[in-house]
Amino acid sequence: MNMMSATGRPSLDDCMFRPRAVALIGASADPAKNNARPQRYLTEAGFTGKIVPINPTRNEIMGLPCYPDLASVPFDIDHAFIMVPAAAIEDVIDQCGRKGVPVVTIFTAGFAELGEKGLALQQRIVERARAANVRILGPNCIGLINVQGNLPLTANAAVQEEKLRPGPVSVVSQSGSMLGSMLTRAAARGIGFSKMISIGNEADLSVGEVVSLLARDDDTKVILLFLETIRDGEALAKAAREAFSAGKAVIAYKLGRSALGRRVAASHTGAMVGADELAQAFFRANGILRVETLEALIELPRLIEGHHPPKGRRVGMMTATGGAAAMIVDRLGVYGDTVPEPPEDFRNRLASEGIEISDSPLIDLPMGSSGGGRYTRILSELMASEHCDAVVSVMGSSARSNPKMVCERVLGARLGAKPLAVFLAPQADEGLSILHEAGIAGFRTPESCADAIHAYLNWHEPSIRVAVDDEELVEARRVAAETIDWDERKATALFALLGVPVAESRIVPAEGGAVEPVSGLAAVKCLSPDILHKSDAGLVALGVTPDAVPEVAGEILRKARAAFPKARLEGVLVQKMEKGLAEVILGYRRDPEVGPVVVLGIGGVTAELRPSISVRAAPIDPAAAQEMIAEIPELRKLAGFRNLPKGDLSALAETIVRFSRLALVGGDITEAEINPLLIKEENYGVVAVDGLVAR
Amino acid sequence: MNMMSATGRPSLDDCMFRPRAVALIGASADPAKNNARPQRYLTEAGFTGKIVPINPTRNEIMGLPCYPDLASVPFDIDHAFIMVPAAAIEDVIDQCGRKGVPVVTIFTAGFAELGEKGLALQQRIVERARAANVRILGPNCIGLINVQGNLPLTANAAVQEEKLRPGPVSVVSQSGSMLGSMLTRAAARGIGFSKMISIGNEADLSVGEVVSLLARDDDTKVILLFLETIRDGEALAKAAREAFSAGKAVIAYKLGRSALGRRVAASHTGAMVGADELAQAFFRANGILRVETLEALIELPRLIEGHHPPKGRRVGMMTATGGAAAMIVDRLGVYGDTVPEPPEDFRNRLASEGIEISDSPLIDLPMGSSGGGRYTRILSELMASEHCDAVVSVMGSSARSNPKMVCERVLGARLGAKPLAVFLAPQADEGLSILHEAGIAGFRTPESCADAIHAYLNWHEPSIRVAVDDEELVEARRVAAETIDWDERKATALFALLGVPVAESRIVPAEGGAVEPVSGLAAVKCLSPDILHKSDAGLVALGVTPDAVPEVAGEILRKARAAFPKARLEGVLVQKMEKGLAEVILGYRRDPEVGPVVVLGIGGVTAELRPSISVRAAPIDPAAAQEMIAEIPELRKLAGFRNLPKGDLSALAETIVRFSRLALVGGDITEAEINPLLIKEENYGVVAVDGLVAR
Repeated sequence: MNMMSATGRPSLDDCMFRPRAVALIGASADPAKNNARPQRYLTEAGFTGKIVPINPTRNEIMGLPCYPDLASVPFDIDHAFIMVPAAAIEDVIDQCGRKGVPVVTIFTAGFAELGEKGLALQQRIVERARAANVRILGPNCIGLINVQGNLPLTANAAVQEEKLRPGPVSVVSQSGSMLGSMLTRAAARGIGFSKMISIGNEADLSVGEVVSLLARDDDTKVILLFLETIRDGEALAKAAREAFSAGKAVIAYKLGRSALGRRVAASHTGAMVGADELAQAFFRANGILRVETLEALIELPRLIEGHHPPKGRRVGMMTATGGAAAMIVDRLGVYGDTVPEPPEDFRNRLASEGIEISDSPLIDLPMGSSGGGRYTRILSELMASEHCDAVVSVMGSSARSNPKMVCERVLGARLGAKPLAVFLAPQADEGLSILHEAGIAGFRTPESCADAIHAYLNWHEPSIRVAVDDEELVEARRVAAETIDWDERKATALFALLGVPVAESRIVPAEGGAVEPVSGLAAVKCLSPDILHKSDAGLVALGVTPDAVPEVAGEILRKARAAFPKARLEGVLVQKMEKGLAEVILGYRRDPEVGPVVVLGIGGVTAELRPSISVRAAPIDPAAAQEMIAEIPELRKLAGFRNLPKGDLSALAETIVRFSRLALVGGDITEAEINPLLIKEENYGVVAVDGLVAR
Repeated sequence: MNMMSATGRPSLDDCMFRPRAVALIGASADPAKNNARPQRYLTEAGFTGKIVPINPTRNEIMGLPCYPDLASVPFDIDHAFIMVPAAAIEDVIDQCGRKGVPVVTIFTAGFAELGEKGLALQQRIVERARAANVRILGPNCIGLINVQGNLPLTANAAVQEEKLRPGPVSVVSQSGSMLGSMLTRAAARGIGFSKMISIGNEADLSVGEVVSLLARDDDTKVILLFLETIRDGEALAKAAREAFSAGKAVIAYKLGRSALGRRVAASHTGAMVGADELAQAFFRANGILRVETLEALIELPRLIEGHHPPKGRRVGMMTATGGAAAMIVDRLGVYGDTVPEPPEDFRNRLASEGIEISDSPLIDLPMGSSGGGRYTRILSELMASEHCDAVVSVMGSSARSNPKMVCERVLGARLGAKPLAVFLAPQADEGLSILHEAGIAGFRTPESCADAIHAYLNWHEPSIRVAVDDEELVEARRVAAETIDWDERKATALFALLGVPVAESRIVPAEGGAVEPVSGLAAVKCLSPDILHKSDAGLVALGVTPDAVPEVAGEILRKARAAFPKARLEGVLVQKMEKGLAEVILGYRRDPEVGPVVVLGIGGVTAELRPSISVRAAPIDPAAAQEMIAEIPELRKLAGFRNLPKGDLSALAETIVRFSRLALVGGDITEAEINPLLIKEENYGVVAVDGLVAR
């Protein structure tokens, strides 16, 4: 796939993964040094392109001609691996630009990971590289490997430990050392790789861009991500969707499940949402599978190869040993997955062949009853049955004492129709090897087995991105683009444009004047983009009768002028007082990492003490809105609980969908919130009584 | 330790673990059969006692004399291993009784685990055994092993796979097959065992009784439990406390974290499994450590050997590879454990030796900086420092490429002062072996490492069991013993005796009459042990003024007589109406499995949708009551949250302690509840306004 672009330069992926010539800038002749490793690894791997050590103090390194600098090299360099000290890198980038090197991998550390000063140096390097038309992988990255291309362009010692085994799995990792750990751990399971990329500080090439290259890479069938953070969500989202369309699963392990501290945001929901909920919403929306255990990350590719997201979250389970299987069932239960009872026709079919099983969810073949083809027959039936979406098979002590015979029980079944995970209860390395060689996902621990199965069951197709530019949206965009100072009235007016029901209101202009009364009692609030805590300042009056509105409005304006002489006053909002059965907070946030999300949360003080929230990448469709509502336990109170009046949850779902379209409005809106949104009785809708927009 | 009891019979533990002669009843001469295994295993293990196959069809099996029945054996049998079909076992038990066999292990299945019919058979066997003075291990158990005694009295195939390696760890398992899995998995880590006991259906000898034997066993230093359920909590609690006093840790893996898991566990044991919160409270109260992963169960003994429960939940962490360590930190964060920053004096001490570390919680030595004794020095400091209660050391790729050198970095440190867990990021089997041989807890996965460390940090000394029989308690016992029909008034009167503040009240007798008014408005309620839903029946009136009490009381009595002519009427309760800032439910339950517990929960409808509860084994001390309050997030509202009025949480704590003393009242009270208990403003106490006691 050696494609030359129109400019005559080879493509980025060719230069990264299939360079014709690699320069090793800062190569060392001392075999004990890290800087000597890449040349040794490339030579030993049989890399067929040119290996070009660059070092001004040597003419030759390890039998290859060494050049003092890039300019002296008498042919094109497709990829440079840079190992010189941080202070020298700006100059090296300039040299690469002059030489026309399209991409460099910077092994050197000492940049953004060290703080402000390093970040500044990193930014200077990126600027120079952009000017010189050079792409950067790293800095602070351990390098990359293309197994099929015999290209271990890295200083990772794992490369010398393991013969690189080709396989369909590619990895992008924000931790360089974890690349090596994954390599050795996968090798022990007979799993091979195609590309392994340490993304380093992600100063230029991002995880998303690299995933996008892998989505188009013929040798890559599955993409693993080891993530510490999400730096360029938009690019990753796009790439994950490309991969999904190409039939390539993307599987992520992400740190930060417990990192609750997130910078304080202007809105309640901004502060309520932890980083992990955002990441979860992001993965889900973009068809990325997520695992919680290291072993599942390595084993999941085999489990899901050739499969699509499941219809349900139902596991068929069979075992030759009760206790071990129960450990897995127990964990699946904690995750909320189900192990259904085998249906009657399923049991009858087996019974007609003389195989009696009970209606227990766990099909248990006690000691000595797995033989005679029984285990294999039941497994084949589970693989074919519509009552489950994935199958777990557990084997007992014979998996150690007679691994070949036991594994044949699995391999003899009709496999392939859905994912199959096999857990071997004893220490059974040979049994695992047999399974691995046959391409079956075998697990060493009940925990990783349950995690992998759950990751599959929790896999969703990428959400549909609504692209309809209807009139509402065009108008909302215009308003958003024109509005500079957002206040409550302007915020709720924007929400109303998108179709969110807002409380009836009038405005008394700042210069005073009469307004038509709202129906019933009114809330009267000062309108100013400059005054934040209006209630505390006495600039809000509740339960005002129609007659009293003019006087109260005038009083609020006088008070505001006295207390905030410099504030811009836009008038007084006279809003109909509304009541609901419950109140929720509906938030929108354009997250700098994962992009736009919509957040549904319960309101009130208790909610702060014990938040109950649901997050999705925005915009969402009606089905996702229903799911969000179902994820807030407190809202079940409105769904027909103990004779309590039902709330209008369908209006709520509709409103979440409409509000989530803020993601399509764009402009520079970073946050928006309706707080509270009142939920009325069934058929009476919902109504927003306060709102804010922040840029 | 061959102790003969006064009767001249050897002790139970001698007969179980050090029998002079073992009868194998139902032994087979066909080596392919499971029934042939025990004899082969005993012979191969070099058991020095007599091995006595019993089988009416043979004179000899595998070179040993075979007897037709027990009566024909011309010497004493200390232990019989029974493998005959279930239907024949009653007769065999009788034979054992006549022969004076003190203990039998029943391998045969087909009892309580199969349902009603099997349970009945099992009960008959237990009755016969009791009458015959024979103790039973099992039935449906795979046997037991005493490694130091060369006694593999089991049909578990794992025994033939592994040379039995002696060690300080003993295991009691409700899953027979898991014994084998643990044996092989531990062997791969160089971990040896002392006793391994499959407890089977626990028809006679319970987990608790066996743990009690192990607590007194000189070869046992740590006791592992694999539990599906807790069948005899009192015995296990007592045994765990004995073990703790003897300096032996008890570590449990228990199924049933999810309802799904409980169902599967139940179908296997024929036992009801309690909620996981109950088990957690039980483990905590009795000094039992709990793990969630299989590997942690096997590795934890080494981690905690020689250590006591920690002072805090603080982990010192150092690593040579950031990503791998972050996986562990992340999990510890999810558990609520902390990784504190190294204190200044700690950093200064290292700096004075030229070792600069940052104030990051994770001490990270990047590539190439672990040498020169630095890793070892920092580790020694962590082991000695007061700022952490346990230490995790993480090693990177060199743990694979140069395992010996890397492990020396750990082994060279001053270890022993606190638990140390080592996680090796790559596949590093040799490195793990080196650590294991040195007695260091080494982990293959970040998940099991975090689980083991958390299990240690969450370890508590057994709770103090208050044994003070004060006057209140004596009086409460008298009342509880004398009361037959509990109603609201009697229940709250009992709580008041224990020191729980209850709402002021008077009783209008059933025959009518005047009572002194309570202060303020009153709730007037019908009093009858036979009428359950008084509110629904219109037999409760709220907000009654003092003047109106006589009329309302009369009306309620008339209504009750008309609607429930057969109900016993004990009068009308006139109770002062009380108000609080919040209401909680305080419950007491004598659980059939884990014994008495006290439960604190939040009240109201939302609580049902999203329960918030804290459970402890009862009675509790004031510190535990404070912890319980802290576990209910909603109660933080009363602890000085956002200018909201503070509630009297110290009165709440005092009341929980007093209420929990129901556990000491005894009688036949199985459940009690205060619902609601109102929490008033600070210094105004709490008050119980309704209560029940059930037997």
